[in-house]
Amino acid sequence: MRILVVGANGTIGSAVVNEMKGDTEIIKASRSNSEIKVDITSTDSIMRMFEEVGEIDALVSTTGSAHFGPIEGLTPELNRIAVNSKLLGQINLVLLGLPYIRDKGSITLTTGILMDDPVVGGASSAMANGGIRAFVKSAAIELPRGIRINSVSPNMLEESKEKYGSFFVGFEPVPAKRVALAYRKSILGSQTGQSYTIY
Amino acid sequence: MRILVVGANGTIGSAVVNEMKGDTEIIKASRSNSEIKVDITSTDSIMRMFEEVGEIDALVSTTGSAHFGPIEGLTPELNRIAVNSKLLGQINLVLLGLPYIRDKGSITLTTGILMDDPVVGGASSAMANGGIRAFVKSAAIELPRGIRINSVSPNMLEESKEKYGSFFVGFEPVPAKRVALAYRKSILGSQTGQSYTIY
Ligand SMILES: NC(=O)c1ccc[n+]([C@@H]2O[C@H](COP(=O)([O-])OP(=O)(O)OC[C@H]3O[C@@H](n4cnc5c(N)ncnc54)[C@H](OP(=O)(O)O)[C@@H]3O)[C@@H](O)[C@H]2O)c1
Ligand SMILES: NC(=O)c1ccc[n+]([C@@H]2O[C@H](COP(=O)([O-])OP(=O)(O)OC[C@H]3O[C@@H](n4cnc5c(N)ncnc54)[C@H](OP(=O)(O)O)[C@@H]3O)[C@@H](O)[C@H]2O)c1
Repeated sequence: MRILVVGANGTIGSAVVNEMKGDTEIIKASRSNSEIKVDITSTDSIMRMFEEVGEIDALVSTTGSAHFGPIEGLTPELNRIAVNSKLLGQINLVLLGLPYIRDKGSITLTTGILMDDPVVGGASSAMANGGIRAFVKSAAIELPRGIRINSVSPNMLEESKEKYGSFFVGFEPVPAKRVALAYRKSILGSQTGQSYTIY
Repeated sequence: MRILVVGANGTIGSAVVNEMKGDTEIIKASRSNSEIKVDITSTDSIMRMFEEVGEIDALVSTTGSAHFGPIEGLTPELNRIAVNSKLLGQINLVLLGLPYIRDKGSITLTTGILMDDPVVGGASSAMANGGIRAFVKSAAIELPRGIRINSVSPNMLEESKEKYGSFFVGFEPVPAKRVALAYRKSILGSQTGQSYTIY
């Protein structure tokens, strides 16, 4: 089984790689710090990555940026960061990667708790998360060749508490290991169109 | 009370105008067939509209396009139609319109049932709908000056059955009059961050 993890060296990505290593072949991709380089905000870069990587059984995305800041300072331009990265970056991985995914393969994207349990500054992230979740639910009913698609929505990770804790007041952090299990369920299970919430 | 309805001459927009007419002043805007012209895919056009219209108590959007078609034919470019129109067009109305909305005013955006009850061909619409719903939920907790924001998610309208009925097999059409009530609730009620589903 060949698994392509985009964002493989990140906090969540490295936990997924750790969870899935063993009998599987894991291909690690990310913008700068992985063997395979890809910028998900560029369709050309995504296409080059798939040509380089070839056929896979599972596509996993654990990446996507968004501007974090007060809604009154959120300009259309700043909001485009989440659109081009977290929302369209992940969706374009699906649209352009589909021909490279083997029959009965799977796709797993990443959203986040901000769409369900908002905090000040998170509207642009929430938008991207909600867009991904609904896209996944809809795409699932018509993906070809038995290919499945799910998304994982983590709470703030324990491993990210120092970085994000001040924004997520009163949120109960979850260990990366628990989050990684949801990716395993999506990759090796049989469900499709789901949003796995690790809250 | 001054209400700006963007998409005022559409199927839903005209029902909202009909529902709200009476004691209120309604300003009708749309791309080509209304007194005020605006193209929501252009931030310049949105800014010109608000300069022309001035202060309002309620901003209502009943517009937004999306490509409808099989996921295997959905290119990143075709998916951009929904992003620029239904998703960012509506969100940019919020971001750029905020300074023109009076204290305790309201914003009401439009999504649709495809995010919850998908049909083949609807993934791009579903994405935009889910993005709007999550944005609304998050923005609501930090809009300034008591301004509220909600979205309305209609099922297929009875009035649109001839146009869309073949795609929405087994869906129970709802009358535009019922849908318009949800906009009245959002404009005149006190709730915020809600997604009103008219299913
Ligand atoms: N951490 C949390 O608590 C948490 C909770 C909920 C949701 N999430 C979401 O989960 C996702 C990953 O979070 P994380 O904390 O694991 O992130 P992270 O540790 O910052 O890692 C980000 C990963 O994405 C890659 N990346 C960034 N921009 C890229 C681009 N344009 N193209 C390709 N790869 C790119 C990075 O690659 P390089 O290192 O090579 O640049 C890195 O591998 C994000 O969408 C985040 O919002 C995180
Ligand atoms: N009808 C349904 O059954 C249904 C159900 C659920 C959700 N919805 C959603 O509700 C929204 C409205 O649907 P509808 O059936 O009422 O649409 P419609 O009858 O086709 O009317 C569309 C309205 O939007 C305006 N418009 C289109 N593109 C625009 C742009 N770029 N900038 C500004 N205005 C623009 C049109 O203006 P001009 O006429 O001047 O061009 C018109 O006023 C859509 O997002 C649709 O997906 C509809």
